[in-house]
Amino acid sequence: MPSYELEYPKQPFSTVNRYNNRASYSLQQIHQIINTTHFVNVSFTDPTSPFPVTIPMIGQMGSFTRPSADTGDVLDLYLHGYISSRLLNTSRSSSNNNTDSNGGDQEKEKEEGLAITVSATHVDGLVLSLTPNSHSYNYRSAVLFGRAVPVTDPAERLWAMELITNGVVPDRWRQSRLPPTAGEQASTGVLRVAVAAGSAKIRSGMPSDDRHDLDDAELRARVWTGVVPAWSHFGEPLPAPDNRVAALPEYLGGFVRDSNEVAREKALEQAAKTMRPKKEES
Amino acid sequence: MPSYELEYPKQPFSTVNRYNNRASYSLQQIHQIINTTHFVNVSFTDPTSPFPVTIPMIGQMGSFTRPSADTGDVLDLYLHGYISSRLLNTSRSSSNNNTDSNGGDQEKEKEEGLAITVSATHVDGLVLSLTPNSHSYNYRSAVLFGRAVPVTDPAERLWAMELITNGVVPDRWRQSRLPPTAGEQASTGVLRVAVAAGSAKIRSGMPSDDRHDLDDAELRARVWTGVVPAWSHFGEPLPAPDNRVAALPEYLGGFVRDSNEVAREKALEQAAKTMRPKKEES
Repeated sequence: MPSYELEYPKQPFSTVNRYNNRASYSLQQIHQIINTTHFVNVSFTDPTSPFPVTIPMIGQMGSFTRPSADTGDVLDLYLHGYISSRLLNTSRSSSNNNTDSNGGDQEKEKEEGLAITVSATHVDGLVLSLTPNSHSYNYRSAVLFGRAVPVTDPAERLWAMELITNGVVPDRWRQSRLPPTAGEQASTGVLRVAVAAGSAKIRSGMPSDDRHDLDDAELRARVWTGVVPAWSHFGEPLPAPDNRVAALPEYLGGFVRDSNEVAREKALEQAAKTMRPKKEES
Repeated sequence: MPSYELEYPKQPFSTVNRYNNRASYSLQQIHQIINTTHFVNVSFTDPTSPFPVTIPMIGQMGSFTRPSADTGDVLDLYLHGYISSRLLNTSRSSSNNNTDSNGGDQEKEKEEGLAITVSATHVDGLVLSLTPNSHSYNYRSAVLFGRAVPVTDPAERLWAMELITNGVVPDRWRQSRLPPTAGEQASTGVLRVAVAAGSAKIRSGMPSDDRHDLDDAELRARVWTGVVPAWSHFGEPLPAPDNRVAALPEYLGGFVRDSNEVAREKALEQAAKTMRPKKEES
């Protein structure tokens, strides 16, 4: 862990304006949110359409050149997605276009890659207040802005696949059939995102109501207020018809138990946190 | 419900190309995914930045002019978000710019609004196969493309707030302090999105492995394969310090029980569905 907490620079596109008392620019907090959501949403501009492209992908923060780096260090985002070919192709053509139009340093332009916005959100609870307009969620939301390039180095691709696989289920990489075949690796899209900026936005605590409503005894006797905690829960693993391992391995059973307990505790912890002083508007 | 299943038109920006055997254009399926996720991701182009803006917002499909419309009917998307002012302002200025530059029909241009992409995703399970490269998720993911405008009619704003509030907890609107004050309504941002196109992508079933791996008895004796089901779970509601309702109301207790059971059953149902014939590549 770094000896002091690193923060992303505030850029015009990354600065939280509304409810800025909920904002954080801490690498540690932002990377933690990215690493613990099941998926991230990747958005980028499609020059042929007025609508941005948005694709859910699996991602994990890491450093290939310094694999022992901590979550709070400067890291790249590695992405693996279901329809990555479209993103990869756009990335390649975007890099080529930059090179063609600018006529600049070809290697540098290629490194620039596709401008993407990456979003990850945990919903920690439903916040139910007296007035419907103060209803809210407890949430931890992160957004990263960066440039995505396809990873071409075979060693880095293999390392990234291990990082991403173990980010879903710890130690699963070592427990599966290794190494991937050349054909499998060739058909697997991996992107490295150099992060330019990022921010997190976090709402925690109980509902906040106006004094006017809190002074209304009849209203308070009628309307239940509080937080319904929420988290992502795993059920009992279901073996495939082709599975031949009789007992569920402990690395997997333990992962399910631990994940559920950690997720539950986090939702309760976020609900119990001291309310922010600023009045909720929605 | 319509007498036949409506589908969104396939546009170049909305057509699923990769794993297109997982695609659906059914209004019913797409709207169902949007309505049952806790939040949607709203992305749009920021003319001052290379990176699209992405904001998590609460959304619900509905029809103000025909409130009894079914989930499978032609509907608008109503959005309410935490930092909606930024989106609303961009939407207004985008409409104005269009009007100024085109000099066309002012009302028509205003109706066009801000081009947004809306994404909603359920993760139904982790799919663990023999080779790491065939690992996947069971998921139901939807994307809508449309034009967003601020809702200015007070009656429609109130109706949309009720739609959105009851989309989070059924009947909560009627159970809270009504009506909202003029000040509350003025500070609440509501957007109506006219949907231009949409698509869903769904992966269900057990892992799919290569014949080569399935013929390897030693490998199958060693690597557990199957699905770890996943769903969003609600914990026991936590009353606020200011709460004065002694017992948890049944509409809320019943909602928590029913939601958990429906979400669990859906994850198990998706895992049990027949595997798609196409081989998994990732």
